[in-house]
Amino acid sequence: MNKTNLLYAQSGGVTAVINATAAAVIAASRERSDAIGTVLAARHGILGALGEDLIDTSTLGAGDLEALSHLPGGAFGSCRFDLDPPERNPAQYDRLFAVFAAHGVGYFLYNGGNGSMDTVAKISAAARVRGYPLVCVGVPKTVDNDLEGTDCSPGFGSAAKYAAVAMLEAGLDIASMASSAGRVFVLEVMGRNAGWIAAASALAARTEDEPPHIILMPEVPFDEEAFLGAVDATVKRLGYCAVTVSEGIRRADGTLVMEQDHDRKGHVQLGGAGQCLARLIHARLGHKHHWAIPDYLQRAAGHLVSAVDHAQACAVGRAAVAAAIAGRDCVMPAIRRLADAPYRWDVVLQDVAAIANLERRVPAGFIRGDGLHVTDAAKRYLRPLIEGEVYPAYAGGVPDYRRPSFASVARRLAAYVP
Amino acid sequence: MNKTNLLYAQSGGVTAVINATAAAVIAASRERSDAIGTVLAARHGILGALGEDLIDTSTLGAGDLEALSHLPGGAFGSCRFDLDPPERNPAQYDRLFAVFAAHGVGYFLYNGGNGSMDTVAKISAAARVRGYPLVCVGVPKTVDNDLEGTDCSPGFGSAAKYAAVAMLEAGLDIASMASSAGRVFVLEVMGRNAGWIAAASALAARTEDEPPHIILMPEVPFDEEAFLGAVDATVKRLGYCAVTVSEGIRRADGTLVMEQDHDRKGHVQLGGAGQCLARLIHARLGHKHHWAIPDYLQRAAGHLVSAVDHAQACAVGRAAVAAAIAGRDCVMPAIRRLADAPYRWDVVLQDVAAIANLERRVPAGFIRGDGLHVTDAAKRYLRPLIEGEVYPAYAGGVPDYRRPSFASVARRLAAYVP
Repeated sequence: MNKTNLLYAQSGGVTAVINATAAAVIAASRERSDAIGTVLAARHGILGALGEDLIDTSTLGAGDLEALSHLPGGAFGSCRFDLDPPERNPAQYDRLFAVFAAHGVGYFLYNGGNGSMDTVAKISAAARVRGYPLVCVGVPKTVDNDLEGTDCSPGFGSAAKYAAVAMLEAGLDIASMASSAGRVFVLEVMGRNAGWIAAASALAARTEDEPPHIILMPEVPFDEEAFLGAVDATVKRLGYCAVTVSEGIRRADGTLVMEQDHDRKGHVQLGGAGQCLARLIHARLGHKHHWAIPDYLQRAAGHLVSAVDHAQACAVGRAAVAAAIAGRDCVMPAIRRLADAPYRWDVVLQDVAAIANLERRVPAGFIRGDGLHVTDAAKRYLRPLIEGEVYPAYAGGVPDYRRPSFASVARRLAAYVP
Repeated sequence: MNKTNLLYAQSGGVTAVINATAAAVIAASRERSDAIGTVLAARHGILGALGEDLIDTSTLGAGDLEALSHLPGGAFGSCRFDLDPPERNPAQYDRLFAVFAAHGVGYFLYNGGNGSMDTVAKISAAARVRGYPLVCVGVPKTVDNDLEGTDCSPGFGSAAKYAAVAMLEAGLDIASMASSAGRVFVLEVMGRNAGWIAAASALAARTEDEPPHIILMPEVPFDEEAFLGAVDATVKRLGYCAVTVSEGIRRADGTLVMEQDHDRKGHVQLGGAGQCLARLIHARLGHKHHWAIPDYLQRAAGHLVSAVDHAQACAVGRAAVAAAIAGRDCVMPAIRRLADAPYRWDVVLQDVAAIANLERRVPAGFIRGDGLHVTDAAKRYLRPLIEGEVYPAYAGGVPDYRRPSFASVARRLAAYVP
């Protein structure tokens, strides 16, 4: 009899370690060739599954998997696409299961964040309704660290390390340039609803006088006067002030602080809170201002990966394969913290239905009373996640990232017309 | 008799390796204790010299110097301050030489870019007019790579490496997210008048299809239609397009493309060209857009230093001390390229008066005919400058940067009233 194939796909914003998860899924599946046939991957997430745009990963050698494990971005392509509710668009699910059936897929692993877990729950439920024999497993990934049910999400540790290093280094620069006029630097990091990356920039500081002096998170309504007062006090004390801001901070009335910029469909494109704050400081306090917006750089920094994050990205990939083989449908391998220092963790399985569409924000106990910085408890939580360095190989002065060449699977179905 | 003291100071925008030069100056001076007494450093460049705000570096141990050599930013503080012309403000020079005399300074090493070389020339000339026995040496430093008389400037190689790595990694990210709607990413790098850092981002690509697809430099007047045409063609071919832009690009009429933002004194604050271009693309072509502005991060990235750059920063520091002892007044140690591959270089002395206030821009032979990318000649020039990695030590997940504690020199003069 044919063995059951496993389909892996990547979804949502990518990270520096999502391919480490992919490489671990492939390696772990090969170790269980008694249970798993071929590991297929869909191009651009669920879109590739619908479109029957599949890759056969069995052509990848051990060297390819090692290279894949250290390649930032999503090697198989990602997407931002939500399946329709099954009752509204059954044809979409018909197609999905037709593709699964045509390629002998009995395990589906979806590597993503909150939206992807919702997809996992939908597909799992649809399979049961149809009696299709599928084990559907969510594999956590998000720089935003906003997945519930896990102590942290693979991808976050490296973004957090990036934010801390960026603030540390920019802080040294601005401290050199401090002058009587006062200088202010604003680092805008990702985080629409959760301030985890901004919070992690606190790990740059060893003392209260070191940057960042102020951290603004979406969990705290932006209070312009309190903020400007804190900036001014810092500049008076030190000659400069460094601020980290999450892109998605809002005023008490719910409006975004950033400059709004709508795309053609009316979606708000974030990015601009840092510039707004820098200009506000300049206009109100007169200080010289600089701002940095690392954008994709913070989630793609394969040259600055956290060793803990990389290890966890691999671990959830391996655990997802084990869960699939064990028939644990609709679960997500999660990181469980056993101790802060020395840091110890393991992987447990969470019920996806219980955590999909929830959003884990920075808790009150991690936010300083004035709302302008984090607590020591936050630093105790964050520190281990950025520890350890995984350096890529370099060639010609840049990381020697190699994208494996992928073998496409021959299509067996008619083209998909959504 | 008292030996002659050496005064070292840092000026202008700092770099990831300016402190490597400082450490080399101190170490080389100690090796020549037959000729040099104490190495003093001025806080905040020439401002510290005028203000008699001096540091005695002889308290620094070997471990301090090693830490200093790997510390980004300007450890002694930098400034943006030009001396007045001597004929207009002789009192300023009276003060400067009074400070030099009070502290036995016979060697003055000024570590900076074009403006700092002008300061070196002014002080050198003033010393000769006054008969003050001073050897004044300029030490090159600028991420902008716009100093004449040297094949490259210490600080540039590391900023260039940063730009190449940033584009490489962000390019992998955006390629993962490519969709039918088309995606565009714009990386804005430093460079008001010279496109060297932008040009260096070309080192991210191994093939024409890899990012960056377009590089906009201030040397080429911005042609909106040609640019949009190239973006559109790239998106049609690849599904996405990555652009590097220098902050200071201008239209043919000389106006800046960036959003203008004036400070209280009317100085233009740059930063915004990337955002302008991203919005332009979105408005005209409808593609999704992201932009990144690393700002200080690109010149302070001690975690991503080019080994060649670090070696050259040390070499010019050592050569400056040797030049000073040899009585070579008003010179600057410069990098001379002997061969591209394998890269070989040495240090020669240049006459500061001949190069101060000149600006070295990206030459026509380095710019592709259509003005939207660089040539192979540019890559041959740039590649060796980013090669080799110097990793800092890490502690707690971030570089273990240690700022030495500095011993202030007791003031011997009355306070300075400018």
